[in-house]
Amino acid sequence: MSDINIISLFESILDKSSIITGEKLKSRFYHIWKTDIPLESICLLLPKDTDQVSAILKTCNDNNQEIIVHGGLTNLVGSTKSTKNQVVVSLEKMNNIIEIDEKGKTVTCESGVIIEDIINSVKEKDLLLPLNFGARGSAQIGGAVSTNAGGLRVFKYGMTRSLVLGLEAVLPDGTLISSLKKLMKDNSGYDLKQFFIGSEGTLGIVTKVVLRLYQHPKTRYTALAVTNDYQKVLNLLRFMEDKISKNLTAFELLWNDTYKQMVSDKTMYNKYLPDNYKYYVFIEYMGGDFENDYNTFEKAVMETLEQGLVDDAVLGKNEKEQLNIWGIREDVAVLAEEKKFDQQFDISIPVAQIGEVIDKTINELKNCKGVETIFPFGHVADGNIHFIIGKNSDDDDLKSNINEIIYSNTELVKGSISAEHGIGLDKKKYLIKSRSKDEIELMKLIKKSIDPKNILNPGRVF
Amino acid sequence: MSDINIISLFESILDKSSIITGEKLKSRFYHIWKTDIPLESICLLLPKDTDQVSAILKTCNDNNQEIIVHGGLTNLVGSTKSTKNQVVVSLEKMNNIIEIDEKGKTVTCESGVIIEDIINSVKEKDLLLPLNFGARGSAQIGGAVSTNAGGLRVFKYGMTRSLVLGLEAVLPDGTLISSLKKLMKDNSGYDLKQFFIGSEGTLGIVTKVVLRLYQHPKTRYTALAVTNDYQKVLNLLRFMEDKISKNLTAFELLWNDTYKQMVSDKTMYNKYLPDNYKYYVFIEYMGGDFENDYNTFEKAVMETLEQGLVDDAVLGKNEKEQLNIWGIREDVAVLAEEKKFDQQFDISIPVAQIGEVIDKTINELKNCKGVETIFPFGHVADGNIHFIIGKNSDDDDLKSNINEIIYSNTELVKGSISAEHGIGLDKKKYLIKSRSKDEIELMKLIKKSIDPKNILNPGRVF
Repeated sequence: MSDINIISLFESILDKSSIITGEKLKSRFYHIWKTDIPLESICLLLPKDTDQVSAILKTCNDNNQEIIVHGGLTNLVGSTKSTKNQVVVSLEKMNNIIEIDEKGKTVTCESGVIIEDIINSVKEKDLLLPLNFGARGSAQIGGAVSTNAGGLRVFKYGMTRSLVLGLEAVLPDGTLISSLKKLMKDNSGYDLKQFFIGSEGTLGIVTKVVLRLYQHPKTRYTALAVTNDYQKVLNLLRFMEDKISKNLTAFELLWNDTYKQMVSDKTMYNKYLPDNYKYYVFIEYMGGDFENDYNTFEKAVMETLEQGLVDDAVLGKNEKEQLNIWGIREDVAVLAEEKKFDQQFDISIPVAQIGEVIDKTINELKNCKGVETIFPFGHVADGNIHFIIGKNSDDDDLKSNINEIIYSNTELVKGSISAEHGIGLDKKKYLIKSRSKDEIELMKLIKKSIDPKNILNPGRVF
Repeated sequence: MSDINIISLFESILDKSSIITGEKLKSRFYHIWKTDIPLESICLLLPKDTDQVSAILKTCNDNNQEIIVHGGLTNLVGSTKSTKNQVVVSLEKMNNIIEIDEKGKTVTCESGVIIEDIINSVKEKDLLLPLNFGARGSAQIGGAVSTNAGGLRVFKYGMTRSLVLGLEAVLPDGTLISSLKKLMKDNSGYDLKQFFIGSEGTLGIVTKVVLRLYQHPKTRYTALAVTNDYQKVLNLLRFMEDKISKNLTAFELLWNDTYKQMVSDKTMYNKYLPDNYKYYVFIEYMGGDFENDYNTFEKAVMETLEQGLVDDAVLGKNEKEQLNIWGIREDVAVLAEEKKFDQQFDISIPVAQIGEVIDKTINELKNCKGVETIFPFGHVADGNIHFIIGKNSDDDDLKSNINEIIYSNTELVKGSISAEHGIGLDKKKYLIKSRSKDEIELMKLIKKSIDPKNILNPGRVF
């Protein structure tokens, strides 16, 4: 079918202002960081509700028309790229928070709502949506669900998967699968929402979600501790889990080079502790007891020093100090800006093996010509380590060498090439390092049974 | 193919002692409570490893032979029933705990291991497997995973789904899908383990699992509180979440009739609090701080009294008192023994609506001729309420009337007809009260794509 004909079909579904074509497409883009590259597409569609999404999908399916789905365009694996023969559907107009259920502690919203808007809205009711990652001010909840986003609070609250209670999605043929339930437990048949969470929009377009909320914590305290021994990092984690139990909300790690960079004169951050230790552990405590929480946390941190679990430690005594400490951990854009070219990773490794695997990986990267800076850091308690690697060129061989080093070391310990970001287009080549051939065949079988014409987000994942 | 011929094919896979036929089948049964009913089956197979499971499935698939899978036979929805034309595969010989990873806090085991054996083995290493339900001494881990079992610790640790890090399963055609990873985060392609968890053995036979473990708590305290107002139950839950945060490990509810029965002269339990309140809340605190935990918990409970959040409350001051209090909650066999005939339910309802829904349901049940006792209780913080309903006969119309009352009230608030037990054979008729026609069609589509010959646990779920 010609472009004109397919657009005319969409005109019977959407009003004209919701169908972006021609010149106007040039002001649209496929990634939030790439606003200078105009979008390639037959047209971009802006449905206002689930019925319109369903009608669009049915039309595309009937006409073998490929569709690429857009959320907040913060995806890091190329998933939102499109070609001039594809139709793009953006959920941005489906941005209503439908209900905040204070008693039941749930929020129901459309897919296009920006995550930070949900966080702020529920906070007014003293509730917490624990999704928390750098892109929260742009990322949409539908994208977070489709990619099973992670972030800084996974250790306590789990990935996005564990926050989704109910979900509505439209299948590639337009069928509506709606289960907007507020239930913590439901074993009535297959848990279909699990199929849509984390499958990167290849099995259906998520249109609405019900998320679980938590009581908003009243207190938040932070400590920074140092050691030269990875075994001590593990012991410290165990000690903290023991002492402050589930009030332990984050346990993050920076390696020496990364810390040095974050407290260098390129940033505003006070370093608090010397920059000559191998490991820097960032510990967060959140609780509900104003009177006792600080004492409980301080006591635990003091004990780690007395028992020699760490070489030194400092407590964030006030809001300013805490912001400074978390800035050192979170403001990772500083690491990417160091070199013109960089590669970023989000591998997953069994927690106990992180020390040795990262040492080995760093050594191999240091011997790789073209690599200039190596910044590892991450959510150590979740086994999720990020790398930002600065390079002197954008050369394909260099890119490939670096991928090979990182992913082979990951594969050796049965790790994952993606803890959080997903596979998209960019990591397809390396999927076989995380998953067996039979696993990938099963993924393809499921995709084929639900999207036999391969029209929805085609070419993503495998 | 004749029975003799299919058995001869199994003889090339298993030694003879692992193929139970003829007279010997009469000493086998399909449910742990029904040891007087001999198993119907062509034969019962006892594979010793995954390769044998794979070969059995391939043989059955090639010969259109239906298979029913047996674990610990504690399922409550008829899932393990078989006919004389079906082959039964029991995982009982695959009962090795393969590895307890103390540093990484994981346990890897075969499917046939009894849950209590895992609990005890990991406890020796100061670790906790938080799966905890009445049948843990017989139930096998493979069954718990296949049915996504719940229990008493779901509020803090989640259902079985949230404990599974890695999984190995065999597809109906014998293909091995192995992903025995110890990763907390893995977004490398579809999360295939989610397809096998909770699908009641219809998509594959789970052969091995990697489970997440937790530090074993050092302290455990219990309180029992009473009120006549469901809103106060909700306020109490919120207060406790606030004050003792994630140390709150259980928040369970008994209605008046249930409490009365549990502290009647038919049991050994001391009642501690008068039996004239409407609601009895059981609160559990677990932590890691010997010195402060009791004070923290006592203070929180005292505050609930001072603030009028509850009408009365008592703390379990020693092990004996705690066992008594939890006995009142857990020893529910007493409720089923009251009448000769009974029906049991495990519905899921949004937490905020439990008060009104259960009131309405009880009133309707009271007007249902043949109903003699009504005992509601459950995991209120998870929204999961159980009913044990005593009757004067096993009449089908009565059974159907009771089902209709419970499930219709559940449907009205978008609840689930099964929070924990699953659908199996017994609840198929009512699945439509929890799931839409299109959802059930999608389940069938997935089943058909993975098990096109419908040989594995056929007829279960839908």
